[in-house]
Formats: sequence, structure tokens, C-alpha cells
Amino acid sequence: MGRQVIIQELPKGELTAEHFSLQDAPTPAPGEGEVLVRTCLISIDAANRAWMQGATYREAVKAGDVMHGYIVGEVIRSGDPAFKAGDLVEGEGRWAEEVICSARGLQKLPAHRPISHQVSVLGIAGKTAYHGLVGVGLPKPGETVVVSAAAGSVGIFVGQIAKALGCRAVGIAGGAEKCAWLTEELGFDAAIDYRGGNLFRELKAACPDGVDIYFDNVGGEILETVLFQMNMKGRVVCCGAVSQYNATAPTGPRNLPGLVVVKRLRMEGFIVMDFEDQDAKAVADLSGWVKDGQVKVVEDIVEGLENAPAALVGLLAGANRGKRMVRVAPDPA
Amino acid sequence: MGRQVIIQELPKGELTAEHFSLQDAPTPAPGEGEVLVRTCLISIDAANRAWMQGATYREAVKAGDVMHGYIVGEVIRSGDPAFKAGDLVEGEGRWAEEVICSARGLQKLPAHRPISHQVSVLGIAGKTAYHGLVGVGLPKPGETVVVSAAAGSVGIFVGQIAKALGCRAVGIAGGAEKCAWLTEELGFDAAIDYRGGNLFRELKAACPDGVDIYFDNVGGEILETVLFQMNMKGRVVCCGAVSQYNATAPTGPRNLPGLVVVKRLRMEGFIVMDFEDQDAKAVADLSGWVKDGQVKVVEDIVEGLENAPAALVGLLAGANRGKRMVRVAPDPA
Repeated sequence: MGRQVIIQELPKGELTAEHFSLQDAPTPAPGEGEVLVRTCLISIDAANRAWMQGATYREAVKAGDVMHGYIVGEVIRSGDPAFKAGDLVEGEGRWAEEVICSARGLQKLPAHRPISHQVSVLGIAGKTAYHGLVGVGLPKPGETVVVSAAAGSVGIFVGQIAKALGCRAVGIAGGAEKCAWLTEELGFDAAIDYRGGNLFRELKAACPDGVDIYFDNVGGEILETVLFQMNMKGRVVCCGAVSQYNATAPTGPRNLPGLVVVKRLRMEGFIVMDFEDQDAKAVADLSGWVKDGQVKVVEDIVEGLENAPAALVGLLAGANRGKRMVRVAPDPA
Repeated sequence: MGRQVIIQELPKGELTAEHFSLQDAPTPAPGEGEVLVRTCLISIDAANRAWMQGATYREAVKAGDVMHGYIVGEVIRSGDPAFKAGDLVEGEGRWAEEVICSARGLQKLPAHRPISHQVSVLGIAGKTAYHGLVGVGLPKPGETVVVSAAAGSVGIFVGQIAKALGCRAVGIAGGAEKCAWLTEELGFDAAIDYRGGNLFRELKAACPDGVDIYFDNVGGEILETVLFQMNMKGRVVCCGAVSQYNATAPTGPRNLPGLVVVKRLRMEGFIVMDFEDQDAKAVADLSGWVKDGQVKVVEDIVEGLENAPAALVGLLAGANRGKRMVRVAPDPA
């Protein structure tokens, strides 16, 4: 038997913890090509919410499903020759203590500890920041990089990677406290509280040479405001639209596509899997920067499977600082 | 003395012919680095209207200016060693019978007749279609290309070039008559009347394999509708936003940037000058296609400088079929 989190009902507007419920269920034996994994960590991502809106880059999740999510855990029993009991793995899983995974959706992890790094800097968050900024944004030293949701799981790495690459890093985040933390603790050149009501003016002051790359995690009005300050041939790395996921009546930036034409911008969407062939380089670069202190790893770990729904709801409201994950069980020995 | 068209007042909303006036003015002698050109043809472009909204890729035009425009004409007197009387030239000019041009903004034209081809298929319209589709869209044979304002100056070439490159070409235009003309005369595989009220459904029927490249001349709701049917890794060539130029309260596509992320789209703006290094290839390819009948040249020539304002107003309302230009004087002998 193991505990699991069920989607009780799909949200129509704002997601709440009441859209989920906890249940006990028997754990089946893995079939051929399947692996039984004991979950250690569940990655909590804004994308989890997007999956509830309908088909995205993957099929939608449905009411009655055990909630889908990205997990790191230990193999208990394997029905696939590629994995054996005791292997540390990551991949597509569920919000559950024990998960039957398709072997094709799993990857073995190195012995690196703490394993939480596999969810943060060396996992989806760090790789998303790296591939989006490096592979899509194509930054040149001296350019100005702006990132929204800058104190979030991906944002903290975007800014720090930008600095490591010789760019000016400017973050947009919610609240003066987060902003101070970005500049004082994480080395951002400037940070702007979008709730301050003066984003346009503060952005202008923080980016005297305009914006060359905007790493967009939010869409909506913030995207609209940054677009006005993009430089010619600027690049908008489209990573997320978190401002829109809970919206019942989404709004589009009113200066699109006008400014894309006028400024010859490139707006490009990506997901981390598009750059799998660059993963080894990403991990090597990120590990190096962590080692020499250029990239600080900030993790926001919520304890207990039962708190996963609240952890996601909080993430969508911007409650996290750094990569949010849920600890379901301690690191394996 | 020569006639010229003045911007009487900048439009706040819809542009009308009354925003312009006609006057006679003495023609000065060209200074050093300047050339006096007798205008034969003026290109009428949606971009002319955008220049009145503010600075774009060039400075804004102002009330009191002789209206700016792209012209083809004959050199009468030259103050620059690169040009001599009798040369046929194209470049930045004015809506006037005689124009003092900066020599740096002019290019000599080959002896090709009719010279109207230098404004249509071998000029900005044809090159814009070519560079946008080929250089930004990167089409592969078998892909589906959708173009809006398909019966317009650029659109007619986008569809025909798409066909020449082995793609499926689908046009969006205003009115059943234009649509029939696109399929029957210009070889589009399908054409959809956006005024029919069923764009989404008709687009779906016309693009059974989805849309790989959308060449967007209009922005707004049509862009929003096409985005829903883009394929993964699709490309949106952002060429114009004519639906927004006359709008006092522009609207943004509500599915931006969401769908750019989900479908990993690339939206990229360009202007024809960005691809100057590819102009020779564009002209060679286009000339070849015209010669072998794969690309038909359709021109919409309005006679008389005094009709230039109405020609632009009509263009913005979609009255043209093919490249619109104003003939100020007959082709030189």
C-alpha cells in the first residue's frame, strides 16, 4: 500500500488544494517494460498547472488521475533489463509514494548528493534556464538579459547564468524582499518589483542600454511592458505564461505582433527536452559554476506528499524562492 | 515647379484622404551628395501608414512633411558622382513629381521594362515575400504555408513562391471574389474569406495537416486563429500588422505567448533590408519563376499623383489586388 494524490476535479479558474485528495492504494507489481519506483522528491512546476488546461506538449491530465509529475526516486522492483533495484532514477512519475513508471520515461542518475540537485540546478530547472538562455537566447557578453519570475526555480538560474556569461542580469519578481534577495544574495545587477506599479519606468532605469534578451516565464502585461524596451533584433525566450494559467479570460500583449515586426524580434518557445543533445554540456557548465561559486543553488523543499497540492498552489501565487519540490522520502543511503 | 503631397495632419484613428493636401512647390537644385529625381512610380504600402504611428524601423513622418515613400524614377540632375542624368533609380523618396534624394538612399536599376516590375515582383513586394518566406520561414517541400492579406502586394507572391518551392499554399483574404481569384488565377491550393465568419473551421478544412508556416501581414484576430492550428515547431513570419494600424485600441492575440511555448513556435519579425545580401538570389529566382510562368505578376496601378492619398486609404481597406502603386509619369524611353 502507498499514499497517492488524486485530481478530484479539474479547476476552471484558480487552482486550490481542494481540487486534489489523498488516498491509499495497493501497489501493483511492475509489468514488462515497467519499473516500480519509491519516490524521494517530486518537482513542483508551473507546467503542472498548464497540464490541467488541456493538451500541451504532452497529453492533458484528467479528473480521477493520480496527479502527474516529474520525480526522483529509487527503483524497488524492475520489469525492465535497463534498471535494477537500488538504481536512482528521474523521470515522468506521479504524486505518489510508490509509482509504476514506464522504463522508457526514466533515466538513471549519477551518485551525486544531495539528490535534490537533480531536481534543481542539474535537473529540469537548471537545464531549462541553461537551454533557454544559451540555446534559444544566444547571449553575447555585454548584452542585457531580463528574466521574469526571477526568484523562481528557473529564474534564479537564468540570472546567474547570464552573469557567468558576462551579461547584465535584471530580474522581475513580486515583492521588495525577493528583489533585495536577488541582488544581494544572487548577484543580479538589478531587480524590479512588478507589484510596485512602475515596471516600465524602473525597467528603463535598470536597462539603460535596452533589453537584448527577455526570458519570459509569465506572459501577459509584463511581457507587454518588456517588449516596449527590447532592442532591435532582440530575442524573447518563451518559457512559460504563468500569468495566464489561472486566468479565465487571458489577455494578449497589445503590442504583438506589431513590435516583433518593427524591432525584428525573434520570439521562440522551447521545452527542455528539445535540447537533450546539449544536456551533457549544460550539466558540465552548471556543475562548474556551482563549484566555483558563480551559481548558487537555492532550493525550496516542502516536506510530505500530503503537502504537494498546497505546494503547487503556492508556487502559482509566487510563494516559492528558488526551485520548489516536495520531499516524499529521505535520500537513499 | 512640381506637385507634391503634404501631410496636412497626422491621423488619430482611421486615415482618410483629407489628412493630405496637394501643393505646388519650386524644385531646388541638388546639393552635394544629392540627386534630383523625376518620379515615375510611387509604391503604396501598408508600412506608409505605420510610419504615421511613430518611429518604426525608420523615423516617423510628421505633419507638414511631403509624404515619404518608396519611388522609382529617372535622374534629372545629380550632385553625386555615383549617378548621372538619365539613370533609372529606386529608393527612399517623396510623394512628389520631383524629389531631391540623398544619393546614399538610392540604387541604380537595370534596364528591365516595364519598370513597374521593379516595384512589384522584383521590388520590395516580391523581395519581402521571398526573404520572409525563404529566409525567415525556412520552408520544406510538402509543408503548408498560410498567408494573410493573400491578395495583397506581398501575399500574392508568398503563395506563388510557396507553390514554386513545393509547399501547399493557403491564402486568407477579404471577399469571395478575391478568394476565387487566388485559387483560379494564381494557383493557391485554397483561399479563405476571413469575412465569412468561419475562419477557424475553414482553415482547418484547408489545412488538414496543420500549418507549418504562417506569413502574417495582419496580426490581431486572424493571427490568433491561425496560431491555434500551427504545428509543433511552426514558424510565424511577422511581416506586418495591418489590422492594428488604424486601431485606436489594439488587441493582442489572447493565445500569446502561451501557444508559442506549448508548440515551440518561432515568431520572427523582419524587414526586407535585413536580407540585402540575398537580394541577387531573390531577383534571380523570382525572374526565373516569372519567365517559366510559375509566378504571375499582378499589379494594381493607380494613375496620377493626386490620387496617391486615396490609393493608400484604399489599400488599408483591402481594395487592392496585387501590388498597388501610383504612376506619376510614364516609363522613360
